[in-house]
Amino acid sequence: MTAQNEIQTLIDTYRQAVMAKDVEKVMTLYADDIVSFDAVKALQFKGKPAYRAHWLECMEMCPGPHLFDFDQVKIEAGEHVAFAHWLAHCGGTNEQGETQACWMRGTACYRRDAGLWRIVHEHWSAPFDMQSGSALFELQP
Amino acid sequence: MTAQNEIQTLIDTYRQAVMAKDVEKVMTLYADDIVSFDAVKALQFKGKPAYRAHWLECMEMCPGPHLFDFDQVKIEAGEHVAFAHWLAHCGGTNEQGETQACWMRGTACYRRDAGLWRIVHEHWSAPFDMQSGSALFELQP
Repeated sequence: MTAQNEIQTLIDTYRQAVMAKDVEKVMTLYADDIVSFDAVKALQFKGKPAYRAHWLECMEMCPGPHLFDFDQVKIEAGEHVAFAHWLAHCGGTNEQGETQACWMRGTACYRRDAGLWRIVHEHWSAPFDMQSGSALFELQP
Repeated sequence: MTAQNEIQTLIDTYRQAVMAKDVEKVMTLYADDIVSFDAVKALQFKGKPAYRAHWLECMEMCPGPHLFDFDQVKIEAGEHVAFAHWLAHCGGTNEQGETQACWMRGTACYRRDAGLWRIVHEHWSAPFDMQSGSALFELQP
């Protein structure tokens, strides 16, 4: 399997684990020195314990079926270093049973340690409006 | 020079070109197939012409001296693929002569083509507050 295929498989595993709300499975994909720039709340989460706590909090806040589709996935993979980016259609069902969804941007950076690819950095965000400072949740690809 | 040092030099050149408002210099650092997830306005900018137009618009909107300091820079570089991330203290002077600044997150992904490192992807953002949907400009590292 080429490095490109290995990263594609890792992305699929990640996406499915998030949809299954399997935080422990998601955590196995990160390196110990993970530095995450997540879309919400803080500038960064450093290390697995801090990021696990954030993931658990996010999962508790998002009940109902999880929409998490990746579009325009682009992968560049070397022998030991790789990265990928995509647009993600993210959503769930609110307390009224309505589906709420928006497009986000995701970037993941990988390192192969002892033969295994791990996520060492990820960056999730929504762009904001320069005038209002509000995140732009209505944008379409 | 190691790949790690080459990427550090590229980051320094990028930072200085942005502070000098030298958009043409910034543009020389991007690959033709640049895909940028910028902090504002759109989900993505694809290709140099679209991204140059966005850079020019941003430079026109930010008069006065430019604050653009990078902190906690982390680089991983392979032979042909590399990435880096940092926290950036970004700011300028408004029409009242007041300095306005905030911390942003930056990720850059690189590919070496014909011996030269180019930025093929970058991702800039501020995190937002989950309740209000407003970007969090007051966070400190």
